[in-house]
Amino acid sequence: MSGTPDGGTSPPTPDRVRITFHPDGGQPREVRVPTGVTLFDAASWNGIAVDSTCGGHGTCRKCRMRVTEGEMAVSRLDPRAYTPDELRAGWRLACTAAATCDLTVEVPPLVTRPKAATVGVGRQVILRPAVQKRCVTLTEPTLADQRSDLQRLRDALPDLELVADLRAVRNLTRAMRAALLDGDGEVTAVVVDSTDGQRLIDVEPGDTSARRFGIAYDLGTTTVVATLLDLATGTPVAVASVLNPQQPFGADVITRISATMLDEAALERLSALAHGCLDDLAAEVCAGADVDRGEVYEIALAGNATMVHLALGIDPEPLGVAPFVMASRTFEGLTAVDLGVGVHPGAPAFVFPALGAYVGGDIVAGALASGMDRDRRIRLFIDVGTNCEIVLAAGERLLATAAPAGPAFEGAAIRCGMRAAPGAIEGVKISDDDVALQVIGDVAPLGLCGSGLVDAVASLVAAGLLDPSGRLLAADAPGVSPGLADRLRQVGQERVFVLAFGPDGSGGSVGSGGSGDKAMEGAVYLSQRDVRELQFAKAAIATGWRLLLEEHGLVDADVAQVLLAGSFGSYLSPASAVRIGLVPDVSVLRIVSAGNVAGEGAKMALLSVRERAAATALVEGVHYVELSDRADFNDRFIDQLSFPV
Amino acid sequence: MSGTPDGGTSPPTPDRVRITFHPDGGQPREVRVPTGVTLFDAASWNGIAVDSTCGGHGTCRKCRMRVTEGEMAVSRLDPRAYTPDELRAGWRLACTAAATCDLTVEVPPLVTRPKAATVGVGRQVILRPAVQKRCVTLTEPTLADQRSDLQRLRDALPDLELVADLRAVRNLTRAMRAALLDGDGEVTAVVVDSTDGQRLIDVEPGDTSARRFGIAYDLGTTTVVATLLDLATGTPVAVASVLNPQQPFGADVITRISATMLDEAALERLSALAHGCLDDLAAEVCAGADVDRGEVYEIALAGNATMVHLALGIDPEPLGVAPFVMASRTFEGLTAVDLGVGVHPGAPAFVFPALGAYVGGDIVAGALASGMDRDRRIRLFIDVGTNCEIVLAAGERLLATAAPAGPAFEGAAIRCGMRAAPGAIEGVKISDDDVALQVIGDVAPLGLCGSGLVDAVASLVAAGLLDPSGRLLAADAPGVSPGLADRLRQVGQERVFVLAFGPDGSGGSVGSGGSGDKAMEGAVYLSQRDVRELQFAKAAIATGWRLLLEEHGLVDADVAQVLLAGSFGSYLSPASAVRIGLVPDVSVLRIVSAGNVAGEGAKMALLSVRERAAATALVEGVHYVELSDRADFNDRFIDQLSFPV
Repeated sequence: MSGTPDGGTSPPTPDRVRITFHPDGGQPREVRVPTGVTLFDAASWNGIAVDSTCGGHGTCRKCRMRVTEGEMAVSRLDPRAYTPDELRAGWRLACTAAATCDLTVEVPPLVTRPKAATVGVGRQVILRPAVQKRCVTLTEPTLADQRSDLQRLRDALPDLELVADLRAVRNLTRAMRAALLDGDGEVTAVVVDSTDGQRLIDVEPGDTSARRFGIAYDLGTTTVVATLLDLATGTPVAVASVLNPQQPFGADVITRISATMLDEAALERLSALAHGCLDDLAAEVCAGADVDRGEVYEIALAGNATMVHLALGIDPEPLGVAPFVMASRTFEGLTAVDLGVGVHPGAPAFVFPALGAYVGGDIVAGALASGMDRDRRIRLFIDVGTNCEIVLAAGERLLATAAPAGPAFEGAAIRCGMRAAPGAIEGVKISDDDVALQVIGDVAPLGLCGSGLVDAVASLVAAGLLDPSGRLLAADAPGVSPGLADRLRQVGQERVFVLAFGPDGSGGSVGSGGSGDKAMEGAVYLSQRDVRELQFAKAAIATGWRLLLEEHGLVDADVAQVLLAGSFGSYLSPASAVRIGLVPDVSVLRIVSAGNVAGEGAKMALLSVRERAAATALVEGVHYVELSDRADFNDRFIDQLSFPV
Repeated sequence: MSGTPDGGTSPPTPDRVRITFHPDGGQPREVRVPTGVTLFDAASWNGIAVDSTCGGHGTCRKCRMRVTEGEMAVSRLDPRAYTPDELRAGWRLACTAAATCDLTVEVPPLVTRPKAATVGVGRQVILRPAVQKRCVTLTEPTLADQRSDLQRLRDALPDLELVADLRAVRNLTRAMRAALLDGDGEVTAVVVDSTDGQRLIDVEPGDTSARRFGIAYDLGTTTVVATLLDLATGTPVAVASVLNPQQPFGADVITRISATMLDEAALERLSALAHGCLDDLAAEVCAGADVDRGEVYEIALAGNATMVHLALGIDPEPLGVAPFVMASRTFEGLTAVDLGVGVHPGAPAFVFPALGAYVGGDIVAGALASGMDRDRRIRLFIDVGTNCEIVLAAGERLLATAAPAGPAFEGAAIRCGMRAAPGAIEGVKISDDDVALQVIGDVAPLGLCGSGLVDAVASLVAAGLLDPSGRLLAADAPGVSPGLADRLRQVGQERVFVLAFGPDGSGGSVGSGGSGDKAMEGAVYLSQRDVRELQFAKAAIATGWRLLLEEHGLVDADVAQVLLAGSFGSYLSPASAVRIGLVPDVSVLRIVSAGNVAGEGAKMALLSVRERAAATALVEGVHYVELSDRADFNDRFIDQLSFPV
């Protein structure tokens, strides 16, 4: 199964090549990248700054590097940039120099100092947005100089090779006449890198180069977040979020997919709801920062495969039924219009590519933001939710899978379950004879949210009130302390553990239904069935990461870091997660809450075309493991049901 | 002023390079092309067929050639197609092999026999439309094969590198499910070459590969013609034409430009009229050939700069006032939607690039159709009209200019002038004592159209009734035959020559106004002022081509062929044109009516991406001479006013 050549002659096109960069005045840096990646990309992805104004299109000729060891073909553009002597000495344009074997490369000193911003999980991103603004002063046409308006602009921007939108040509003619009448001849070109080159999307009269913005979207099944970024500085200037208005069609992706299968009009409706929501958020963040919507020249979006399919009006049915197939993993050439977002009418939309039907663009964005592709350590990225996505980085190989955790963490299947809102128990500590609760909003407890559920179960296991098989002890069982025995009660046919009693048998507990016991009115408790729900969820997740570790022959202790992502994962107690076996048995210091990494990834994509390219490379470099295709899944799942002893 | 190196060491990048092709089993063929042109383009433009299914995007690896003499860099794609030994032997992919020095090249035998069609002025065009349809049979996804629908399609078309439109992805998912339910798994991909790669614009269920159409438009100031082409066979299947509905805004381009300067709403209105007209024609040709409008996957359009600017909604004002500047000479990435044409919603639109504000895309299309760029002979292309466009090909250098001929040929400024419609005198022969007329529709003469005007004047010069200065003789002048003397009359203050008398002094002549002479009621005549109008027109035109000839140090007799183009030029009598000095003094056998070459050029662009590329190369290779910038224009113009003796 090993794909790494272990000696002898190297194959004609190895999977990966090693590049040793020697930056001027800096430490040598060795990186390994997929074969065919350009020196420019290899350097940029690894934080080695390279001069460039054209964004790697071979037009500015500024990304000079010298290959001192290893073979590098002369590109079609190299002879325009170098003399034959320089070519022989190994000088190449980094953006057209594709690495096909191991190389040693000298990187000359930077001519311009790049700006950088910190985003993601402590990631330092060199600012190079796809959106550029260039203010130029145009000379007046004469009979001796009848160049077209566009040619005149092109000649003023010799480092770019513009592909002009019709709208830009229309506005160029107007802007130029206005600029020449004003006497200063200044116009500002709005240029966006896209798959089809450097697109001129608009020309504005005067100098507007200080104003350029983008919106990063995290399109979640539950919550949608928009961040307005100042692309000139890399700073977020406004944030807004709303609940996903598709919720009436179902709380999770499966129910929304089902809705489209039951009703032909549902796809169009769901798509329109997504568009309306994204557009409303755009209006909100722009208003909040006093930015005109026409000054937003690009948007980036991270979402799971179902959310992206629905937003783009693509039938999601094949995502919902085996064999779980996407229409496409990548979407090129999209515009904000395709997503219903009313910003600049020529604004492109970058939508994160997906790894699989259940490891979507949100996870790719998250993996990018947490640098899963750039860290040599063995790291596990777990986005806990109804569908739990898992990515394992081990050296150069990334593995990903999706585990069907079910609804335990959402609260819906839990007797006293509720969302993480005021009144929700989010933390539980059980001592010898008492229970300490952490309640959101410091109010009387109303129910149990996902992190509270994990904490409660972990504490019960630690206190010996739950046996490894997940069975709640009876109140009179040996070893049950008198202070806790009263909490082990029976509700209907079911044994429960009371976390909080209602005030004198009355009150507003969400868990009040179904109990004949007056004292249980308003109480918040954990039932035997709730424990089973959590066992199923954690077994599915643990089976997922365990199978990925086994693919590499690794054990728990090998894992250097566990990143808990997603709105739920971020609130989990690392110790409790380890206690119930939801994550590998490692020191809690190695378990990190990553926060909303999907949104961070979307921001990174807006701030840097190189990071965006890295996301695409990441998708190509990851191997997706389909759990439902594994014959041993059910056996492994059952193995994982019990709690670690 | 000479740009040709005349010996010694050649410059690092010569303007043109010589390539000698040795086709397998054929005669060697030497061609000269601009530096940087690929071997693929150089061969295709010169009618040397090359295997290719990807259209020169480097993906099909079929365009194999071997460079036996001269240096040719190894492209990034070559190592994927050839072994190191083959590379050393000179094998290259023709589509990525840019010629930068003189070369000798072997062309292997063709694997597939190309289809060809005859269009333009006897041009044999190898069929390679931008639109391709590819029927593929897709396998059903399984848990072990979860490739996305798009990936599955891509894998089935390994010679293409598709960039998928969102619409195509939407339809792919539907078409694939439908195809798999039917059991045969067949879908048809609709692929169009564009500036941004091979665009997948749609996916249709089943095998529709036999049905693909395009519409070629000739968007004239007066007349708009649409031809529906079957792109699979190269055959025109329906043609329709209408008068340009913009005419109420003015008969010529200047009056239409003025309209937009007087009224802010006029541009939008003119644009809408163009769209409506193009769309109506699309409906008409499709209905006529029983073709669904959705089966039209591309359109091509040739028009002068003003017509194109108006149709695209671009302010034409700078075209109408000195220094006559276009917004852009080329328009990339246009779609049929941009031109208001309701065909397939993803259909691209190819709009011919222009040489100058007054030598537009119609002339480039005409020059392409008449092979002006590929003939070593000295040829003059003259499109006679209000604005007369002239192109001179002499060896490898093309010169172009526009001469302001004025309205003489349109009939509007001529006393008895009318359009070339039934009743118009289109031919005139004057013998010793009689006048023979050729009338359109074989009815009684009603007026004089442009070709009749030229014929009439030429005949009068030949008969000695007009002196070289353009003065009509008096009836009693010496040498006026008795049979013709009666025709030399006075109308008001003006001398006239009667071509046709009215029936007994009455009748429907358009020339009946203004004469007090009862016998002149219903007569068709030529007035002294009409002769002056024609003199101005022909002087402007003759000044134009004469200046171009002089740029090359050529004289009339050097001209091997004169092509008369445009709806008017095609009907001109070559002998008369020579007689009045409208064209160089060459044998009438060398004067050819080229017909509607703009429309032919548009058809060629639809049938062959190579011809389209040749049109773009032609634009880059032509030097535009601005007449109004010439200090000597007025003197030269006056020299040309008189008739040759």
